Amino acid sequence: MSKHILVTNDDGVTAPGLLALVQAIRTIPDTKVSILAPDRNWSGSGHVKTLDRPLRVKEVTLIDESPAFASDGAPSDCVALALLGFFDEKIDLVVSGINPMANLGHDVTYSGTVTAAMEALIWDTPGIAFSLGSVENHLSTIDYTAAAEIARHIVEISLAHRFPPGMLLNVNIPYLPSEQINGTRITRQGLRVYRDRLDKRVDPRGRPYYWIGGDSPTGTPEEGTDVGALSAGYVSITPIQLDLTMYTAIPTLGDWGWESK
Amino acid sequence: MSKHILVTNDDGVTAPGLLALVQAIRTIPDTKVSILAPDRNWSGSGHVKTLDRPLRVKEVTLIDESPAFASDGAPSDCVALALLGFFDEKIDLVVSGINPMANLGHDVTYSGTVTAAMEALIWDTPGIAFSLGSVENHLSTIDYTAAAEIARHIVEISLAHRFPPGMLLNVNIPYLPSEQINGTRITRQGLRVYRDRLDKRVDPRGRPYYWIGGDSPTGTPEEGTDVGALSAGYVSITPIQLDLTMYTAIPTLGDWGWESK
Repeated sequence: MSKHILVTNDDGVTAPGLLALVQAIRTIPDTKVSILAPDRNWSGSGHVKTLDRPLRVKEVTLIDESPAFASDGAPSDCVALALLGFFDEKIDLVVSGINPMANLGHDVTYSGTVTAAMEALIWDTPGIAFSLGSVENHLSTIDYTAAAEIARHIVEISLAHRFPPGMLLNVNIPYLPSEQINGTRITRQGLRVYRDRLDKRVDPRGRPYYWIGGDSPTGTPEEGTDVGALSAGYVSITPIQLDLTMYTAIPTLGDWGWESK
Repeated sequence: MSKHILVTNDDGVTAPGLLALVQAIRTIPDTKVSILAPDRNWSGSGHVKTLDRPLRVKEVTLIDESPAFASDGAPSDCVALALLGFFDEKIDLVVSGINPMANLGHDVTYSGTVTAAMEALIWDTPGIAFSLGSVENHLSTIDYTAAAEIARHIVEISLAHRFPPGMLLNVNIPYLPSEQINGTRITRQGLRVYRDRLDKRVDPRGRPYYWIGGDSPTGTPEEGTDVGALSAGYVSITPIQLDLTMYTAIPTLGDWGWESK
């Protein structure tokens, strides 16, 4: 039976990473691809649910003439729209990306690319987030060819298997030519090292303002983690769930004397 | 040694839930309380990192004359500002709330109240999110008295213990008079049941728009979960971490044949 795949992203519907992903997965036999993505960049937006205003959706055409829809909501809003019935046909899989920069470690809670896939979980639909480990300064010249081919392969394998309930895949692809990619690793979420600083400045009218800025995050390239796999030239596939309970802390907390009052 | 507590929220600095929390925890001996919260409501905003514009911070006065700061950033931005050096003195604990409505189950990834505490984790600082299980229609008349007293007790116990690294507490308090609250339960994240629907309408100029709406979420009140504890009249304390890896899926995924190409 034909599978219906929704493609979205957090960089906006016109982003080259989305086009590359669409063109690659459209070649998978027995699939139909629909596109509903934000009309602007939502990077770093987190998991958003827009309840205080209605959303608009307009028909657009990508540069290869593909029909698509653009919404003024966040990536997760686009997914909610699609899964709650914007399209007549049921969606079988949500894929998000390709984000130009990696989403590793703690990035998953900030990342619009990943939170789009989280929203799919909320509505019992498998989701896959794709990100490329490129560097920040060359966004306009990024070559998505190798990454799109790998994404196609991962979508094809995913369609052939049943996702455990409540799981999404967070995929990070090294920014390397295909022949230099060493393979695929199933990983756990690693440790991001953020290097933000507070940069206080004064505007022309003498009033202070604050940039949250600094160097790009690095990470601890530990064996078995997303950070480690990507830095060793492997595609990293991390299974992600929405249960954030720290189970190991439950017994400890039980001894803290909460009822002492 | 005196402890420095940052209070923030996602409803905005003027929200009565924040004032009640501040007034309660200010009575804990040897503590200093600073307030830096959004200048407007950010409910449902998720974990936001504002990188594309600078943030403004203005001095404001709460209705009890407490000095406070209001920022035009998200709750998580307020926490980043505070922990990256907006205040001269180091922050020892971030508390967020009191949110008028519960943050249970999957709400934790959407909730501005919880993501403020998540941002504290990023900067190696303990965080506690407080929410009240009230109902949606009476926001202006909510009585925070009992909840604030319970929050004070939880903060006091938390300050007396060492948080495991990478843990925040997500606290939900029943909306009941103190004497009707049955006690405290350490819980795991339960299952929220969202009941959103897509509501398509047409504007006066004949163009469609879409509300994501419907009934308030319910939950499965399972024993041992946040949903179960709150519905049984207990204060729910859930330890939350930022590692979202679905460890149980790693062996399964390893057998899916990724290298078959």
